[in-house]
Amino acid sequence: MVDTAALCVELRDTWHREIPLSAVMGIGIDRYEEDTLVVRAPLSPNRNVHGTAFAGSLFSVCVLTGWGATWLALRRRGLSGTIVVADSQVRYRKPVTGDLVCVCTAAAATVADALEPFASTGRASLPLVATIDSGDKRAVTFTGHYVVHAARHG
Amino acid sequence: MVDTAALCVELRDTWHREIPLSAVMGIGIDRYEEDTLVVRAPLSPNRNVHGTAFAGSLFSVCVLTGWGATWLALRRRGLSGTIVVADSQVRYRKPVTGDLVCVCTAAAATVADALEPFASTGRASLPLVATIDSGDKRAVTFTGHYVVHAARHG
Repeated sequence: MVDTAALCVELRDTWHREIPLSAVMGIGIDRYEEDTLVVRAPLSPNRNVHGTAFAGSLFSVCVLTGWGATWLALRRRGLSGTIVVADSQVRYRKPVTGDLVCVCTAAAATVADALEPFASTGRASLPLVATIDSGDKRAVTFTGHYVVHAARHG
Repeated sequence: MVDTAALCVELRDTWHREIPLSAVMGIGIDRYEEDTLVVRAPLSPNRNVHGTAFAGSLFSVCVLTGWGATWLALRRRGLSGTIVVADSQVRYRKPVTGDLVCVCTAAAATVADALEPFASTGRASLPLVATIDSGDKRAVTFTGHYVVHAARHG
């Protein structure tokens, strides 16, 4: 039985320690249930000239949520590797006027497909979608491709 | 004759005052020549778990450089309006291991096309590309659509 609560603490601590901007943004993990990671950041440090959420902060929360969902999916399967985002698309439909709350699901079937070549090639590519709502409306839709390389043992 | 040096100071001061993250990232304006804006940020506050530039910082520098190039293009033409990014794509090809230096050109012909309906509709959409190199190699290519709405007079 994997202790996902401990993994979430490790994930957040890693972010805050190694990505200084994530600490300034106040990024925290709201919850991790089934295959869905929810990440939250307060508006105040992430505001823009209009007093709503800065496009760069919205992107950063999305890209980290996808990265975190990938990291958690690997760790729950006893795997590790370096994770980088290769390309991404983001669509801004509405301003975000409160907390930035991002949801990303790394569905078991998607992860299984992505990991199929991992054991033999040491490389996996995982497509993920992360979203942020404002009220009950979709505000941001992010699509990213995460590439995992097996950790090298020195 | 528009004083572009003064506009650049106003642009940077606006960013630092109204987008707190841009100040933390250490974003500054390197130069603005012809229609090309170059924005720079140091690596240290923008690093990731690999010690290279964080994808969210790279995106933020790109989205601000495009926003700044749009703002400057408007101001040089005696126009103003609210500028928001509607959608964008970003491709990460290589890690950035030094300063994040982003280049965006708002070519006169592109701006003229975009502004053609502005006077009658109060709305313009400007497609821009921003890039970041690492050494002499292209590291990041960002494409964004910026929407300008004429400032409302109350």
